[in-house]
Amino acid sequence: MLELDAFERNMQRMAFAVRGAGVRLRPHAKSHKCPEIALRQVAAGAVGICCQKTSEAEAMVDGGIRDVFVSNEVVGAAKLARLARLAQRARVSVCVDDAANAAELERSARAAGVELHVLVEINVGADRCGVEPGAASLALARAVAGAGHLRFAGLHAYHGAAQHLRKVSDRRAAIALATRKARATKALLESNGIPVETVTGAGTGTFLFEAASEVYNEIQPGSYVFMDADYGANDWSGFPDFEQSLFVLATVMSVPTADRAVVDAGLKASSVDSGLPQVVGRRGVEYVAASDEHGVLRIARGGDAPRLGEKVRLVPGHCDPTVNLHDWIVAVRGGKVEALWRVAARGAGY
Amino acid sequence: MLELDAFERNMQRMAFAVRGAGVRLRPHAKSHKCPEIALRQVAAGAVGICCQKTSEAEAMVDGGIRDVFVSNEVVGAAKLARLARLAQRARVSVCVDDAANAAELERSARAAGVELHVLVEINVGADRCGVEPGAASLALARAVAGAGHLRFAGLHAYHGAAQHLRKVSDRRAAIALATRKARATKALLESNGIPVETVTGAGTGTFLFEAASEVYNEIQPGSYVFMDADYGANDWSGFPDFEQSLFVLATVMSVPTADRAVVDAGLKASSVDSGLPQVVGRRGVEYVAASDEHGVLRIARGGDAPRLGEKVRLVPGHCDPTVNLHDWIVAVRGGKVEALWRVAARGAGY
Repeated sequence: MLELDAFERNMQRMAFAVRGAGVRLRPHAKSHKCPEIALRQVAAGAVGICCQKTSEAEAMVDGGIRDVFVSNEVVGAAKLARLARLAQRARVSVCVDDAANAAELERSARAAGVELHVLVEINVGADRCGVEPGAASLALARAVAGAGHLRFAGLHAYHGAAQHLRKVSDRRAAIALATRKARATKALLESNGIPVETVTGAGTGTFLFEAASEVYNEIQPGSYVFMDADYGANDWSGFPDFEQSLFVLATVMSVPTADRAVVDAGLKASSVDSGLPQVVGRRGVEYVAASDEHGVLRIARGGDAPRLGEKVRLVPGHCDPTVNLHDWIVAVRGGKVEALWRVAARGAGY
Repeated sequence: MLELDAFERNMQRMAFAVRGAGVRLRPHAKSHKCPEIALRQVAAGAVGICCQKTSEAEAMVDGGIRDVFVSNEVVGAAKLARLARLAQRARVSVCVDDAANAAELERSARAAGVELHVLVEINVGADRCGVEPGAASLALARAVAGAGHLRFAGLHAYHGAAQHLRKVSDRRAAIALATRKARATKALLESNGIPVETVTGAGTGTFLFEAASEVYNEIQPGSYVFMDADYGANDWSGFPDFEQSLFVLATVMSVPTADRAVVDAGLKASSVDSGLPQVVGRRGVEYVAASDEHGVLRIARGGDAPRLGEKVRLVPGHCDPTVNLHDWIVAVRGGKVEALWRVAARGAGY
């Protein structure tokens, strides 16, 4: 369930923050997987969107998005052929962190008769994908720039691990380090005659720092439209006041004892990878255990105990994988359903 | 990806174990959500299937199953109306643990002109749903037996929390306690003139004990067809040798360093609620971190490091919510795809 007023205020807050900083906004669609939301983000000034998978990008282009950056490596001939075919009907960019993958990308682009925009992913601290900044990045950028159907478009310098550091000062420090690495790599490439058009990264937890860096010129936050309990545990001093707009609406299906109630939303309704969901607006009621189809609420003495059949609003622990469990987002305003938005890229994991 | 040979052997092992014990098998479809599998279970001797949700039961009846037990409470007029309509085209049973809910159930059954089979759920140790054994169960069974469109069908005495106790002796002890409660409640009801046709419960981790109890006469294991890493960590002494048949097939999408590789299957491909997936058949390679779309593999020195683009087979931490992330089960035999089975009840969470 999406509270539209809060969702729209979140979009306005991000647009306002980005306008001041002079960077481009390319929100991440992995959070919502919903073309209706992506179209609204573009209408509010985003230059395009990010996706994580080829199939996710296809769903977004099918939904009317014309500029998609797969902020991830795509490996294997079948997926690359699909990615290249997608570039016949949209502007498609993608990451590489390996020369053999860049060569495979070139073959796919040539076979489809398209040009792919390619960003070299550098490891700026997350220790996941990405070549190391410096010489390795230069060699890979040269390989991309020299390929006939690839256009070297810049650097992907995303620090995912920094987003949920609780203290603002820790997030700022992590991005300061990432920025140094991105700046040095950009300078190295440009001193070798390879212009670096775009340096992109950032998530909801850190985007102010990348936006102020004067190195990053594009940011890709995703969760800000929804928020979740894990982000709710961050310190947000100095950040826009993003509101919780996404909820799981559960029904109380059993009240076996005075101190226990059970809701019908378990871990197949709200992903628990980053913690349990939180109960909204009920004093002394806590979601303490999730099984597949059940959530156990503990009711404190004198707590605002829900009755059998009552609805309980839950804040998901982690918004992205929670949305990926559902086929529809129920968009609500003032207590009434205003629209059903299809999660068109739900399950698009390849 | 489902290895059909292992899957079929698991079905045979369960059929063999049940035949010896003289109990009925009603496997739980919440694990697979796939009518193709449910139909095979019925063909192998199951009396019907279990579901957890009304929408899941609808998908199973649509897929050709004629006898469905929703082993859970269903609350709210809209869902109850759907459940009652389903009973117009299949044998439908359901649990209750509340007298008001039983009354609501009766109204829905009357409105649809059907008879619903109703089991009273008793709390035998899981402390989730269910009335307490004894007097409370008797009062509720009387209410059900006295309702014109409900048929009191027995007791639901499932001990979910016992399934993953690691030691066989602990699981045996938990089910011994559950059995005592089920036996005493059955005796109480029968001494009050209410015949208890069915006592049902059990999962893959404990079914041998319920089957040997001489109280339970129906069992509802689900995971045995697939298995997973969490069940793999149990001690299985004395149990049939169920094999891992379900895998997530991941692609190596990045090999940034000699000690690290990244696969394209993260927590949106393999649910991490009960632990990370495990890598199959690669010495010195461990899946150490899952993010939304990435899995990080740590490669020990001298380990069997995968190359970029290679496929890696993963055992999911928890089979049920992992299957619920996918639209299709790819059924494989001898390295060849033999069928695509639709996960028709994926996302059927209401």
